[in-house]
Order: sequence, then C-alpha cells, then structure tokens
Amino acid sequence: MNEAGDTGVTALQRGGGLAAWRQIADALAAEIRSGAVAAGAQLPAESALAARFGVNRHTVRRALGVLAEDGLVRTTQGKGSFVEQGPIPYPIGPRTRFSEIVSRTGREAWGDLIAATTMPAGPDWAEALGIAPGTPILELHTMHRADGAPISTARTCLPLPRFAGFDAAYAASGSITRAYAGFGVADYTRLSTRIGARPASPEEAERLDIAPGRSLIVLSSVNVDGDGQRIQATRSLFAADRVELVVE
Amino acid sequence: MNEAGDTGVTALQRGGGLAAWRQIADALAAEIRSGAVAAGAQLPAESALAARFGVNRHTVRRALGVLAEDGLVRTTQGKGSFVEQGPIPYPIGPRTRFSEIVSRTGREAWGDLIAATTMPAGPDWAEALGIAPGTPILELHTMHRADGAPISTARTCLPLPRFAGFDAAYAASGSITRAYAGFGVADYTRLSTRIGARPASPEEAERLDIAPGRSLIVLSSVNVDGDGQRIQATRSLFAADRVELVVE
Repeated sequence: MNEAGDTGVTALQRGGGLAAWRQIADALAAEIRSGAVAAGAQLPAESALAARFGVNRHTVRRALGVLAEDGLVRTTQGKGSFVEQGPIPYPIGPRTRFSEIVSRTGREAWGDLIAATTMPAGPDWAEALGIAPGTPILELHTMHRADGAPISTARTCLPLPRFAGFDAAYAASGSITRAYAGFGVADYTRLSTRIGARPASPEEAERLDIAPGRSLIVLSSVNVDGDGQRIQATRSLFAADRVELVVE
Repeated sequence: MNEAGDTGVTALQRGGGLAAWRQIADALAAEIRSGAVAAGAQLPAESALAARFGVNRHTVRRALGVLAEDGLVRTTQGKGSFVEQGPIPYPIGPRTRFSEIVSRTGREAWGDLIAATTMPAGPDWAEALGIAPGTPILELHTMHRADGAPISTARTCLPLPRFAGFDAAYAASGSITRAYAGFGVADYTRLSTRIGARPASPEEAERLDIAPGRSLIVLSSVNVDGDGQRIQATRSLFAADRVELVVE
C-alpha cells in the first residue's frame, strides 16, 4: 500500500461496471489480506485516500464502511480507521482473567467503569448469584480494551454489603482481579460459562467500534471465591472480530 | 394470535406513520414474545395472514422477513414460517456428542451427509490432526438438525486409511458416534475447542434457514481416541439463534 501522505494516484476502472467505492474497498481489502498493511496499523486519512484514488471523500468513506462491515477495519470517530488485528485467543477456564489474557499477547489491558448502580437483584441476577431476589447488589457497567481497541463491554453484579465500595476499587485499578485483592479475595474460580452470539445493535456497535450487525459473543459467567461462595455474575458482550474463545 | 384459517381481520392503523408491514411484524412479534404463539409452532400461511390483516401477501412476506432478521421465526422455502424454539443448551466438555445433547432436550437429532471428499490434507487440517500436510484425509460436509430445524453445518476431517468408508457408515447411521463404533472407536474425547462468531453469508443463511447476517458460532474442535490419537478435526457453523454453548 502507499504510505500515508503518498499522493500518487491509483487508477480505477471507469465504466467497467464496478462502482468506484467497491473498487477502492477491494483494493484496500487485498492490501490488508496480503499483509501489505500491517495488522493494527492506521489507514491513511480519508483525504489522503481520496487523493490516491482520485475520488472525493464521500466515496472513500463508503469504501471504508464496506471494510468495517466485513470486519477488516475498525473506524473510530475522530481518530481514523485501523486494520483489525485478528482475534485474541481468549482462554475460558477455571481461572479466566481479562488483564492476564490480554497482557500475555503483548497488548495493554484496561477496564473502564462506565457506571455503578446499587439495586435490588432481579430474578436473573439473583439466580446467578444464588441469593434471594430483592437482595441488594452492586451492578458495574464496564468497557474493556486491549491497546485501546474495545474488546468487550460487560455488566457485572456483586453481592452487597460484602463488596460495597468495589466500584471505586475497580475504577482505580482497572481490573476486577486487582479490585478483589483489596476485598481479601486472593483467588476466585469460574463456576459456569454460557456462550451465545447475536448481531450487535447500532448502539452496541458504536460503543465497541464495530459495524452494526457484526457479531457479538454473549458470555454469561459466575465466579466463586476460595470458599465456593458466589462473588460475581457477569454478562459480557465481546466484539467477535477481536477474540476467539479457547476452552481449556 | 388468531388460529390458522381464522379470517377475522385485525385492524391496522392507517396513515399513522408506521408502515403496514412494520405494524404486522410488531403484532406478530408481541404474540410470539408473550407465548401466545408457542415456540416451534408454525405460523399461519401467508395467505391466511394476508386475510387476517387485510393486506396483500407481499406485505405479509416483508413482515415475516423482519421477524426472521430478528431471529424470532425461521422461514423455510415451501414449508412456511416457524417460531424459533429458543436456544438448545449445548454442553462443551470432554465428551461432546451432538446426538445425545439434542436427544436429551426431547428433540430428534439427525445428521445428513452432504458430501464426502478424499483429499490431501492442507496445512490447517494437517496441523489440527497432527499429520504431515499432503497426507490423505476424508472430509465430510454435514448438516445437523434437531426436530428438522438446522442447528449446524460442519466440515469434519478424518485421517486415512484408518477411516476409509466412514462416509458410508455416517450416512447410514446419521451420527459420528455411531459411525465410530463401527470402526472400533468405542470412546473419544475432546482435545481442544475454539469458539468464534461472525455474520452468516447469504449462502450459509439459506442452508441454515436463518436470515442473512444473523450470527454463526464458529466452533473448531479436535477429538482423540482412547489412545490419545487424533481421529477427528471439525469446523462447525452453528445457527447462534438455536444453541447456547455451556462450558462444562
């Protein structure tokens, strides 16, 4: 591929039946698949691509939209388009830790707290945590990134009063595992994991920087502490283009 | 919901801003979600629905298309539309057997052999089976159903010459497990399982009776016999609306 800023014009077939945006999408897809553009690399700006192909920015935007729909690039508003890095192998086993899994691949892991709510447990969360419906729980809404790319968004419920203040510990450490340590939970293990998949809604897609309709892996899990007490129920939505679950 | 054949007209809001097909889709979706139409039940024929809502069949077809896109119904060409039954819990563990899993839910399981090909192993299959690339393998292309509804389609590779004739044994028994028994493999266990997800292509969607773009769960697995020999590598595409994987 041309370097960003290279304004040499790449010729398109005119009148050949294939629209310009489709030809541009095909050309960029071929460069990505061949490895000529590295995984994780940022594509040239829309204006640079427009100059390279001799088209306007609207046409470039349409071509980039096709690449996003095919899961080849991730477009972040105001930041540009990045080549998808291929899925992170994500082991599902007795000790599943997002931070460790992502760090092991050489990427930087971080979890952001979007919201924390204290509320009475509804029937689903109550069943997952093995408590009576109506018992107070803390629900955390979180976003998990690897090298800045959104990997998953999750809702995690913890029983109260045991984990009162967990939200502040999580926000400070960016890791469930590190936050548990502050509550005397040195180890925890996976009790159950259920896995489904469905298309992302427009809102979910925007939050995860994927095209609407790309697949989400829906992962429902329960963790227990060293005494077998249920300490966490989580429902995660993974951008399926960015992870591959590996059952251990 | 009205019974099939009931021709009492259900009034639509005219000129209210919502198109007739959208109102019909909403009305049918509400009946499905409320349980008024049972899971697995067949919807009335297009002509009956057209009479009920006082519209033409084209409008009904568009409404049914919306329900299929939302994963609420499955439309089979020439057979009609059926309410989706909700996902089958599908345990992923050391002994994962499609027939047993489906039978346990009270459904009838069957696998159809679509094609069988003898070929040299490409790099991916060779690595999965732990053999040299180019070694002869038997590749089975199969379709798996529960009570007639397509659950998954798969490509399964077995090493040759050990499993020569496995395709005929599979076609006759409709089950990998039963076919193995005929080759002296009384037991086999799961060595590895990887799980991803992506939207179905139009061809895949047609084969699985789902709407294009609904999610597929892509499951790659390797099985070993009692001596630890790799006897099977499989890549399955599951209709995600019809299964929920449960990690054991």
